[in-house]
Amino acid sequence: MTGLTIWTYDWVPEGPRGFVRDLRLRWACEEAGLDYAIATVPFDGRETNHLDRQPFGQVPYLSDGSVEMFESGAGLLHIAGKSEALMPSDATGKAQTLQWTLAALNSIEMVTLPWWFLALSGDESSALSGWVAKRLYQLETVLAGREWLAADRFTVADLLMADVLRIPKVRSFGQRPASEAFVARLTDRPAFRKAHADQISQFEAADRTRAQATA
Amino acid sequence: MTGLTIWTYDWVPEGPRGFVRDLRLRWACEEAGLDYAIATVPFDGRETNHLDRQPFGQVPYLSDGSVEMFESGAGLLHIAGKSEALMPSDATGKAQTLQWTLAALNSIEMVTLPWWFLALSGDESSALSGWVAKRLYQLETVLAGREWLAADRFTVADLLMADVLRIPKVRSFGQRPASEAFVARLTDRPAFRKAHADQISQFEAADRTRAQATA
Repeated sequence: MTGLTIWTYDWVPEGPRGFVRDLRLRWACEEAGLDYAIATVPFDGRETNHLDRQPFGQVPYLSDGSVEMFESGAGLLHIAGKSEALMPSDATGKAQTLQWTLAALNSIEMVTLPWWFLALSGDESSALSGWVAKRLYQLETVLAGREWLAADRFTVADLLMADVLRIPKVRSFGQRPASEAFVARLTDRPAFRKAHADQISQFEAADRTRAQATA
Repeated sequence: MTGLTIWTYDWVPEGPRGFVRDLRLRWACEEAGLDYAIATVPFDGRETNHLDRQPFGQVPYLSDGSVEMFESGAGLLHIAGKSEALMPSDATGKAQTLQWTLAALNSIEMVTLPWWFLALSGDESSALSGWVAKRLYQLETVLAGREWLAADRFTVADLLMADVLRIPKVRSFGQRPASEAFVARLTDRPAFRKAHADQISQFEAADRTRAQATA
């Protein structure tokens, strides 16, 4: 594949549909108006069937000509480097965007995702709960004072933070009206809605293929 | 301050000395041969005394002329953008470096840090243990096959991954000889040793200042 290609699973169960992280990359390409293709790796055997491309057995990964890369955050920064729509080119705007992109991954998701995982495993009141509360309310204070995280405009940092915050269990954590308005505003963008609908459609089409294969 | 300045606490207790994340940024500057200054914010009152500079009340943050930014990962990428010593400038090398830098933060530290925090809170056998084991052994497989994570040479990705892996509780997790050799090799670099010694010295000097103030 010579153009920008986003790799994801060929199928996933209903639970994660709309949340598989290829959505972050689809959304970024839609915002930037970049052409991209979707390619797939089998969900069955995913733990080992693409370790040569993604050593943790996950998706997404990206190919772009001779460049191949995994980690959705890295893929986002790679795509953002192609478009002013995602990443301002001035030094201050770029630094702010980088800072909030990394904050989404390493200050918010680093706490919310393990907390969510523990809750899923039956531990609803882990010691992470207090940490989640603290970080989410600190972020609420930030979002109460501004429309966008960086550079007074939409950037890839908003896209990623909204994707981290829109996980239902995180979204419904406490009363955080500014954060809720932020998520609602971001996920109402046409580029998000297109990316989301495309991911759902892909997996629904795979349901039909799988049903035919076993018919 | 007009040059590159790394902000950290004016003092910390003995426990975190040698591990406060300003070390990541010091280390990067030392590797790149960049001039930098250290500036401090009081440890006492840290939860609220610098929220205008770091909305989560943490350190480090960075100033570089008119640019200000927090998140150690973002600061590393900012510094890496100044020096080929940290980040190759060719497209493939840059993508690999970005990918492994983000993997250190969002695939490894996102699991190991909450796991460490839970253990510190008395929960030694949280459901995160299995996730930690899986990720660390997947990484061990990668490190068994190569000396450097990206581009067949030292990059900021090695620096960050080594800093994530050198936390004692993580470092001693299971038998992972390639990971141990990686951490030993990276932390034996003169730039790490200088950065580490400088951080320790700063906090030891602060001990003396505090002792005089209360004498």
